[in-house]
Amino acid sequence: MERLERHASFGGWQEVYKHESEVLKCSMNFSIYIPPHDNNEKLPVIYWLSGLTCNEQNFITKAGAQKYASEHKVIIVAPDTSPRGEFVPDDESYDLGQGAGFYLNATQEPWSKNYRMYDYIVDELRTLIDQNFPTNKVQSIMGHSAGGHGALVIGLRNPEIYKSISAFSPIVAPSQVPWGQKAFTAYLGTDQTLWSDYDAVELIKSSSVKMPILVDQGSDDSFLKEQLKPEILADVCKEKDYPVTLNMRDGYDHSYYFIASFIEKHIKFHMNNR
Amino acid sequence: MERLERHASFGGWQEVYKHESEVLKCSMNFSIYIPPHDNNEKLPVIYWLSGLTCNEQNFITKAGAQKYASEHKVIIVAPDTSPRGEFVPDDESYDLGQGAGFYLNATQEPWSKNYRMYDYIVDELRTLIDQNFPTNKVQSIMGHSAGGHGALVIGLRNPEIYKSISAFSPIVAPSQVPWGQKAFTAYLGTDQTLWSDYDAVELIKSSSVKMPILVDQGSDDSFLKEQLKPEILADVCKEKDYPVTLNMRDGYDHSYYFIASFIEKHIKFHMNNR
Repeated sequence: MERLERHASFGGWQEVYKHESEVLKCSMNFSIYIPPHDNNEKLPVIYWLSGLTCNEQNFITKAGAQKYASEHKVIIVAPDTSPRGEFVPDDESYDLGQGAGFYLNATQEPWSKNYRMYDYIVDELRTLIDQNFPTNKVQSIMGHSAGGHGALVIGLRNPEIYKSISAFSPIVAPSQVPWGQKAFTAYLGTDQTLWSDYDAVELIKSSSVKMPILVDQGSDDSFLKEQLKPEILADVCKEKDYPVTLNMRDGYDHSYYFIASFIEKHIKFHMNNR
Repeated sequence: MERLERHASFGGWQEVYKHESEVLKCSMNFSIYIPPHDNNEKLPVIYWLSGLTCNEQNFITKAGAQKYASEHKVIIVAPDTSPRGEFVPDDESYDLGQGAGFYLNATQEPWSKNYRMYDYIVDELRTLIDQNFPTNKVQSIMGHSAGGHGALVIGLRNPEIYKSISAFSPIVAPSQVPWGQKAFTAYLGTDQTLWSDYDAVELIKSSSVKMPILVDQGSDDSFLKEQLKPEILADVCKEKDYPVTLNMRDGYDHSYYFIASFIEKHIKFHMNNR
């Protein structure tokens, strides 16, 4: 593990590291905010998953989360959104390949060797964080857009690992929208029965455990009607009596200005559900 | 004036505009945060001046100021740092030409036609803001690095316009450091007696009015010893009994992580000095 950046921030440290991922078979960057804390103190962790085209930088430069992580004494880890590098398969479009890993384990070629972001987030990165930073192994997960999809799917499938889930503008039903259908066809193949393991709405339909879930969605999000469709999540949660909190935020769009405006509430939500 | 961006942010609006500048003889962008306010309510304005290589975007995406501007009901305007465009003179280096206007009126060629950022900030932009937004014409000024130099110089020379001045990591004595000497030689010529109008330390030496000034400086700033030299400001303020508040912040660097950590204090400082 090599430290690439270290900046004092709200009394703690915003750092960026590079490491060799065995799971993804490439070099990966992640960012980590470490709040001020006492020697020997162990801290909870929130994982943040970013959306399409993003890397480990977007959240730490734009969301303004460090203030609240400092106040609540929580570590925030923000990984990259896909495997990276010259020898990692890619696609010309912004919504497939590098920058668009969709937090799944690909089964199709040429993707299956490197595109295993699900295992990377759930196992490899979490182990690396627990081994190298002062965590108390209590974690939760949040994300934005395709990363909101990732947070919902990873959280719902691992209730023994994550205490709570939150998302900004998530793709709630990837099997039913163009972004998800394109990615799932490429990474998982055309057999749609295999897609449900990576579809939050399908996972909630078959879920036996109820996890705390918070979703914020801007009403002026340009992807709202075609790609995000929070009403599908609202409907299935109502049907299943699943206690999700879905806030529609009047006038807000898909940007980090939206995330910054409500990230405090998400961090508080996770800390209240430890 | 053309609106390029509009994002809901902390109950208000983060906007970006483009306009034709008569002073700079080119098209210019500026950003403006408008907090939530009542109809017909008039609001104070803080002008933010960014540093070398920046434009109107850096502050609004990275500083996290909108939260505090919203809470304190103050407009924040962040202009670009120089004239821009294909027909505007430029230089290959990052610290001269486009992105490095140094907030002065150039007298030397090829700069004198466009490089008039001092007049642009003090007169043209302020008039444009007052004509198009709900201001109460009470303003103050702050900035970072070369923009901290700009805020100090513009504030000190115009105590009837600006109520208070603050700066992060400012170039306090440009006549005595490489960044300033290079820029002043190019823009103002080799006669150093003409530089003092744009040198905060020289202006304080000859100042008859005492304005509230707040400066924050990181102790781990890589430009501290060669370019920033806050001790020169501290010494002249002590000598002149000028009441500047200079905070050295242990461990902080020159980045927006530093600015974000203390921007709340700067906004409160300006609001307390209205």
